[in-house]
This record gives sequence, C-alpha cells and structure tokens, in this order.
Amino acid sequence: MLELSLDPDQGMPLVDQIVDGVRRRIDDRLLRPGAQVPPIRRLAESHGVSRFTVVEAYDRLVALGYLQSRRGAGFFVAPRVAPAAEASEAPVDRAVDVVWLLRQGFDRPEGNKLKVGSGWLPPEWMDEEGLRRNLRSLARREDVHLTSYGTPQGHLPLRQQLQRTLAELGIGVEPAQIVLTLGATQALDLVARHFLKPGDCVFVDDPGYWTLFGKLRMQGACLIGVPRNIDGPDVEAMRSLLAQHQPKAFFTHSALQNPTAANLSPAVAHQVLKLADQHNFVIVEDDAYCDFQNRPTTRLAALDQLERVIYIGSFSKTLSADFRVGFLACHRELAGVLTDAKLLASLPTSEFAERLVHSMLVEGHYRKYLERLRGRLAERTTATLRMLERTGLELYAEPTGGMFAWARMPGLADAARLASRAAAAGIVLAPGNVFRPQMQPSPWLRFNVAFAADRRLERFLGEAG
Amino acid sequence: MLELSLDPDQGMPLVDQIVDGVRRRIDDRLLRPGAQVPPIRRLAESHGVSRFTVVEAYDRLVALGYLQSRRGAGFFVAPRVAPAAEASEAPVDRAVDVVWLLRQGFDRPEGNKLKVGSGWLPPEWMDEEGLRRNLRSLARREDVHLTSYGTPQGHLPLRQQLQRTLAELGIGVEPAQIVLTLGATQALDLVARHFLKPGDCVFVDDPGYWTLFGKLRMQGACLIGVPRNIDGPDVEAMRSLLAQHQPKAFFTHSALQNPTAANLSPAVAHQVLKLADQHNFVIVEDDAYCDFQNRPTTRLAALDQLERVIYIGSFSKTLSADFRVGFLACHRELAGVLTDAKLLASLPTSEFAERLVHSMLVEGHYRKYLERLRGRLAERTTATLRMLERTGLELYAEPTGGMFAWARMPGLADAARLASRAAAAGIVLAPGNVFRPQMQPSPWLRFNVAFAADRRLERFLGEAG
Repeated sequence: MLELSLDPDQGMPLVDQIVDGVRRRIDDRLLRPGAQVPPIRRLAESHGVSRFTVVEAYDRLVALGYLQSRRGAGFFVAPRVAPAAEASEAPVDRAVDVVWLLRQGFDRPEGNKLKVGSGWLPPEWMDEEGLRRNLRSLARREDVHLTSYGTPQGHLPLRQQLQRTLAELGIGVEPAQIVLTLGATQALDLVARHFLKPGDCVFVDDPGYWTLFGKLRMQGACLIGVPRNIDGPDVEAMRSLLAQHQPKAFFTHSALQNPTAANLSPAVAHQVLKLADQHNFVIVEDDAYCDFQNRPTTRLAALDQLERVIYIGSFSKTLSADFRVGFLACHRELAGVLTDAKLLASLPTSEFAERLVHSMLVEGHYRKYLERLRGRLAERTTATLRMLERTGLELYAEPTGGMFAWARMPGLADAARLASRAAAAGIVLAPGNVFRPQMQPSPWLRFNVAFAADRRLERFLGEAG
Repeated sequence: MLELSLDPDQGMPLVDQIVDGVRRRIDDRLLRPGAQVPPIRRLAESHGVSRFTVVEAYDRLVALGYLQSRRGAGFFVAPRVAPAAEASEAPVDRAVDVVWLLRQGFDRPEGNKLKVGSGWLPPEWMDEEGLRRNLRSLARREDVHLTSYGTPQGHLPLRQQLQRTLAELGIGVEPAQIVLTLGATQALDLVARHFLKPGDCVFVDDPGYWTLFGKLRMQGACLIGVPRNIDGPDVEAMRSLLAQHQPKAFFTHSALQNPTAANLSPAVAHQVLKLADQHNFVIVEDDAYCDFQNRPTTRLAALDQLERVIYIGSFSKTLSADFRVGFLACHRELAGVLTDAKLLASLPTSEFAERLVHSMLVEGHYRKYLERLRGRLAERTTATLRMLERTGLELYAEPTGGMFAWARMPGLADAARLASRAAAAGIVLAPGNVFRPQMQPSPWLRFNVAFAADRRLERFLGEAG
C-alpha cells in the first residue's frame, strides 16, 4: 500500500509531490525493483487527486528511469542502476522539498505570521546584549588577530572549555578529540562525507531531524527510519531492520529529541550500543538541545566513551545561529581525519567566532542566562500544554525541557492538511510528515512552546477540531 | 617512465611517498590498468632509494588493490574496480599529502621561520584597524541581529555591491545570480559536489592551486593537468587532452594565476570557451587575486557572461581570511540549485561577517587601502626580482601584480630537494611539485614577495646555486 502525503495547498504542484514521494521510497529501497505500484485509478482515488495528475507523475517517473510501464500489466519499479550514477544525477533535486521547507524557515518575518512550527527561539529571548558586549571587547583586544586563518581543529580554549562541559555529561574527552565546525550542520556533513558513499544505507530517527535527511540524501545515502519510542529508538524494530539492512551509521538525538522532546533511557542506550557493536555501524549522536536540559539524561557517548559514538554539539540554539559555531567529539584518530576533511571542505573555521562563543561561555553570565531561558520555556510549556488540553489535542509525552511539544488531534490521520489550512490563516505549523524520512503521512504536529501559547492558534485549533 | 618526486627530508616516509605518487597516477588514469610499472631495481636506482623501500611500497600497493604482481613478469596496474567503491574507500587519505601541506600553512609562527612559500600577506599589512573599527560599529547597531540565521543566498547589500564591482570587470550579473559562501573554498566545494561524481574527470591548471586538487580528489574526481602557458592554458595541449578525456569541468585562475602570476590573454580565453562549448564542460573561474590587479585583464566570465562559466571570488586575501566570506556568480537557475546545496551543507553563512565585509568595502577606505597594498607589493616585487637575479634564478614571467614570483634555479630539475634543505635552515619554500596535480617533479619555486626580499633567503640561494 503506497501512502503518500499529498497537499494541494503546499505550494508544490501535486504531480511533483507524487514524483517525489515515489522516488524517495525507491531511493531508500522501500519500494524494491520489480515491485508493482498502485494502478493509476487506485492511487488517484485513495489520495483524492485526479487521474491526470497521477498519469503525469507516472510518466515523469518513467522518464526519470524510476518506473517501467508494462503494457496491460501496469507500472513497476525499474531495475536499479549502479548507485554511483544514480546518486550523482541530481543529488540536490532529490532532497528538494526538504530544501523548500528549509528555505521557508529563513524567510524574514513578514506581516504577523505566527511561527508555531519554528525550530528556534524568538530573537528577543537571546542574549543579544551579551553578544554585543563581547563583540566590542574582542574588537578592542590587540592580541585577537582578525585577518589570518584560525587553527585546523579550532580555538584551543574553546575546546578546553568543551572538555569541561562534556565531563559534566560523563563524556571523557581530550581537546585533541574535539573539532570545531561551522555549526552542528558542518559536523554532520563531514561525518556523512567520510562514512557514506552513494547507495549506502543509514538509520535515522523516525520521526527525526529533517535537515539531516536532506543532507544524507545529498550524499546519496538510503534512509531507513527507526521508529522512535518515548524512551529512545525502538530496539525491537531496530533489530528487525538490521535483519534486512546493513547500515553504515545511525544518526540520532538522545536528549530532548527533535521533534518528540523525549529522552533516551539508559536501558535502551545500552541495547542500541550493543546492536551497533554486533552490526558494526557508527553512531552519530547530535546533542543540539543539550543546554536546554536542567539535569542531564543518558547520552550514548557517556556509555561508550567515544569508541563508536561521534558526539556533535552546537551553540546555535542558545547563543547565536549566525556565528556558526558547533563541534564534534570522537576518538583521536578519527578527529585527525575529520579535521583533514574540514580543511579540504572549507579551511579553518572562524577563530573570531570561536573566541566570541568562548568568551560568552566563560564570562560568568551563561549559566544564569540558561536558567532564565529554561524558566521561560517551562512557563510557556505549561501554557502550551493547557492550551492543547483545552483544544482537545493529545500529547505524545510531557516535555522534560526544551522548546517543543509533540501532539496530535484525535481523528486526524494526516496533519499536513491541517498545516495548509493553518498557513492560509497566517499560522505556520510543522506537520509530522516533514519529520519522517520518506515524508510519510503523520497525525502529529510539533509545537514551539515559545510561540504556541497564543489566542490565534487556540482559536484555529478549536475550530479545526 | 615513472618519475616520482621523492624527498627523504620531507617528513613523510619514502615508502608513503612512493605509494602516494603511484596511487595518484592510477586514480587519475595516467597509469592505465594492465600497464607495467618499473621493476623494483630500476625504480630504486632512478630515484636513489633502497630496493627495500620500493619492495615495501609495491607490497602495500598490491594490498591496496592498485597493483598486481605477476610471477616472473613484474608488477602491473590492477584492473579498475567500480568508481563508487573506489572513491568511498578513503577519500581523505588519497588527498593526504596535500592536507599535510595545508596543515603546515596554519601552523602558528614558531621561532623565526621565513615563510617564503606562504600564500598570504603578513598580517601587519592588512587593515586590522579598519576591521576593529567596523566591528565596534556593527556591535553598537541595534538593527544588526546577532542571534538568528542569515539569509539563504547571503546579505543582499553585499551582493548588490558585488554586482557593481563585477560590472567593472565587464561581468554583468544580478544579485540573484550571486551566492555568498564560506570563502572561495566553500564555493569550489559546492560546485565540485554538484557537478562531479566519483570517477569523473576534471581539467585543472598545471601548475595550479593545490588546495583545490585535494578537494577534487576528496570528491573522487580524476585530475588531468592542462599545461599553463604565460598567456593562459595551453590550447593545443587542451585540444589533445580532449581527444582522450571528457572532462565535466575545468577549474582555472585567469588573473594573477597561482602560482605563475601570469594573466589570461583575450585570444586564449576565446579558444578555451570555444573548446568548452564543443566538448560541453563547465568552466570554474577562481578569481581570488582579483583585487591585487591595478588594471583588470581578461576574465572568461566577461566573455561568456556566466552562460557556462561559474565565477568565484573571495575577500580572504585582502580583507580577512578569518571571517570567511567568499561568493560565486553563475546563471540564475544554477544559483538557486547551489544555494540549496549550501543550505544542506552548512545552512546560511554568517550575516554578521557579510555585513562586516560590506561595511569595509563601502566605508570609503577600501580603494585607498588596496592602492597602498599594491604599492607595497610592487616595491617588494622589484626587490625580490633583483634578489633572484643576483642569485642567478630564472624568472618564469615578470609578475604584473599580486604576491607571487615563479622562478627556477638553472640546472636543478626537482625543486623539492632544495625546499627540504631550506626547511633545515628555517626557510619555508614552496616547490613546484606541490602545484602539480600528481605532484610530479618540477624545477620551479613560488616566492611570496612579501617575505622573499630577505638576506637569509639570498644567502641560502646563493650557496645552493
């Protein structure tokens, strides 16, 4: 049964949406060569679109080499060409609707759109004044070089500071094991380029972080979603996926997972690491939401001590997304190799930006600022949960921190439709399908609590329910 | 005849140097499957190394699958495996000695090493004071957001400013055709990732820009060097290379080419563009040294108007390498696609850095500063040329600007040996082999005029000659 997430109001033509949905499933081998796809009439009826739309989409998929038409018998998935050729054809194109979504996120605020689906905090919550103060002070210092390149692994004092903060999470690491990067995004990119070749299979959280999905597709990887439970990846599901696939890596969030806001339990962490050992894949643990936790929960890196886990972090969420400072920590030899890859990809990262982040961390205000942020988020989370209760939405799990709440409207199978109606009302929602590796339909929605406790949203949800 | 550039004092074991030299030639298909490599004894003698060294290198090449040993007959290049598998094996490893060189460049100054081989200006020549002033002023401005992401294509006023400066070079471009990047390096990276798949062939300048070579190898490309004449690429050589290879792209410098400091002539530009049309490859024109020219010379992009040419520039050489601001300009549709690729690779670049560069360009001091820089460089160039004349070195061509002079010592076939003797004397030279795609031996050396008019160097060259 082919279930696509189609939405006439999404801004992307329905034909493109069908082409894209089918391609993803073929690329990720969920539809195997030789498998029959639904007849035109059936697909049109089950998705409420016209037959012409499906005809055009299938024609295009045939032209692209994804489908074959067998006269009288219908449409079938075409035999695979060699992975290399496949991946190079149009890597970005295959990731295109993720990019489309990504671009929306960077739209400068127009009018008074309510960005309930946003992945960031409102700028006015951030410590702009602290940044200004530290910028001015760095600009005055004669010993801060502004014109020459930084160092290959990044500003040493910041790496030393990270050594201390990672120790608090139970992760033992030397500065030589840390590589500063252009946000967590470049760290993920370097890891993907190092470990994956076109056609390789990777496991990702389902639901999970969709910018990552686009990046992995650009690298030509096949994405397999591991269902996410409230205490982490579904270990039983992972085990049966491992019977069919040999992933090179598993990319996952352990703390305040995006989008579910749930944390990994120690027992599940142990099982996941055991499976990684047995099946020999690396684990890439993205901890972008780390600083939003009041008390640290389990990290895979804390159990494994960076033997097999590559730990990735960022200051984009709490300090500044614009200065682009992130990092990765891993075993020493790999840190050297990934530093080489970083130099070839972009030369050293900005030492000025790294010094700025370092001075923000050590000047003595950061902990206070985080406490304020967490307090504010806790307040808004309570207000959001009350609002969701009043409008009859069902919560996935009580958030333990951070900015997200993951909830669904009873009786609604595909939240994408709700999101397009919301868009027409000036409310930007984040429907669950965008967080799924093949954009499969999902009843869930991610609410950013900083924006969600709002009358307009409550009225909209109340009327929609 | 296999001619490797071996240097016992280079810091990399001789075995590694042989393995690397042979691998490069096989990867780039200069040694074809089935071809015989020189017998152990012959290679040892012709390169002045021990037979044990060659035995160990050949053994390792057999283990790596690059060579086959046929009993009694010698060693032969092994049949190629599929490009995909090949490229993914260890992309960085294959580029490793370029990275090794690259890392040397970022070493913080220790003792009083004389960096004659450096690719940058001395920090004290740069406008640190101007940067500090603009940093402070940006830090004061309330309308400059410091915490949220920049825009996908980059800060519009800087793109508008680039539109004006490119118009002065005769390149007509709209801001929508310009994408700001993390230095020219990310621009080259995005283009390489978009156009090249593992195993694809690319043309590069020989001699040319070696960081680029490492990057292209990381992408799995085969590098074919197009010999560089004083007026640009050797068109006749290019034509015969095109009879054997189908390149996807040609990466080249037109103005103040690195390392020869020579400029492209209009007649050669026209021929190169005609060949690109006939053989359907894109041209990537890296113009990193643009602002060092007093009067602009021919750009491929000015003839072609960004139909087939992708033009790349940077502010790293004249304003700051640390703030990492560069750009690419190309036709509009491609600009959109490369912006998508940029978002997936690294999210938007830093708007603060883009604003800083923009304010440096428009505050009214930049032209004056460039004039000062050019005057200083002209002075040092004269002094360097006199020194080279006194020590009996032969100049490739009189530099018309910029920071490089390309010269050789008569009677010396391989400048790498000279460079290692210099290193022992605390002088860092840039020997010609590092600027060649397969690190072939070269008699040439690149001198940075800002450091070259120096007694220590003169004494060393006088004694070496």
